[in-house]
Amino acid sequence: MKPIIIGIAGGSGSGKSTVTREILNFIQPQRAMILKQDNYYKDQSHLSYEKRVKTNYDHPFAFDRGLLTEHIKELKRGHAIEMPEYDFTLHNRKEDLVHVEPREIILFEGILILVDEEIRNLLDIKIFVDTDADVRILRRIRRDMEERGRSLDSVIDQYMTTVRPAHLQFVEPSKRYADIIVPEGGSNRVAIDLLQTKISSILRKNDSIDQ
Amino acid sequence: MKPIIIGIAGGSGSGKSTVTREILNFIQPQRAMILKQDNYYKDQSHLSYEKRVKTNYDHPFAFDRGLLTEHIKELKRGHAIEMPEYDFTLHNRKEDLVHVEPREIILFEGILILVDEEIRNLLDIKIFVDTDADVRILRRIRRDMEERGRSLDSVIDQYMTTVRPAHLQFVEPSKRYADIIVPEGGSNRVAIDLLQTKISSILRKNDSIDQ
Repeated sequence: MKPIIIGIAGGSGSGKSTVTREILNFIQPQRAMILKQDNYYKDQSHLSYEKRVKTNYDHPFAFDRGLLTEHIKELKRGHAIEMPEYDFTLHNRKEDLVHVEPREIILFEGILILVDEEIRNLLDIKIFVDTDADVRILRRIRRDMEERGRSLDSVIDQYMTTVRPAHLQFVEPSKRYADIIVPEGGSNRVAIDLLQTKISSILRKNDSIDQ
Repeated sequence: MKPIIIGIAGGSGSGKSTVTREILNFIQPQRAMILKQDNYYKDQSHLSYEKRVKTNYDHPFAFDRGLLTEHIKELKRGHAIEMPEYDFTLHNRKEDLVHVEPREIILFEGILILVDEEIRNLLDIKIFVDTDADVRILRRIRRDMEERGRSLDSVIDQYMTTVRPAHLQFVEPSKRYADIIVPEGGSNRVAIDLLQTKISSILRKNDSIDQ
């Protein structure tokens, strides 16, 4: 098996998770997996809670790019990984690792996955989900207020302090490295269909090699 | 036969013709055709040559949208059309029409094909080839000077007077109606492959219906 890695980037609220889910739901579960960049935030055990709280999760420096790069390479080689998980309440990596077996199709999702050249070069298809900033912030307000019980002030404060600056500095410029740009994300039926058709073709080829 | 229409838009020098050719070369000739928006410039026989010379070919008003819409509808219905051609030396529609039979895959190419809502709604897949303005003007300079023997001054004058204003006013805003945006055009192997895979799938389905 030679796994295919499909990178799905895009700003917060762009709809990239919906795109990822639409693609995943289309594939037999044993043939695909999601790899989230969010699981690769740095281990911060050496820092006090007071310091950890200040982590800027929207900046590339927050990620353990060495481990992430190594894990993508391992998955591409067809090897299993021991994947970290992250606890956003404690602002630290969880103690337990998760054993993850590689799959034929790996959907690699995150806001900053196209920023790093070495990681970019490991991706077979690079997608950027592009949605206007006003629509993205509205989705974020709704999600953070309704699902996470946060105040409007705190959402706006975080958006203006870290989310927006990082979007303009890192996320938006990384769009130019995409192979295709998908406007509007999950509701874009034609783009989803193009990707699903490509994945079907890859899986069919794998089937014919197996036989 | 129910033809599929794939619209390929993008600014002057974006590489949309290369994308169109890369897709066309991949399909058996009897199964695909190109429809160019450039053939649908308005008939200007009622104007003097002096007036015709002043035509702004970068503005949506220059096109015979009624005839173009009707012809796309006819092709979608599986009917042949009598296609006009345009003479850029005389700045007028040519006298003779060309008989064009519909094909399973119709590649519809032009800078302004995503501007008009009625035409947009007739397209099954809408592609916008997106290339930076500096790269586009460099390609245009090279093409117009080397292939068409024009002076640098005349290229720059035309670019600043009609091409650039129309790009900013009509072409660039029409990008948001695309289903997928393809950065860099013809050299984008991954995007071309996605489109070729989709077309293969359509043709295979047509084959299975025929049997």
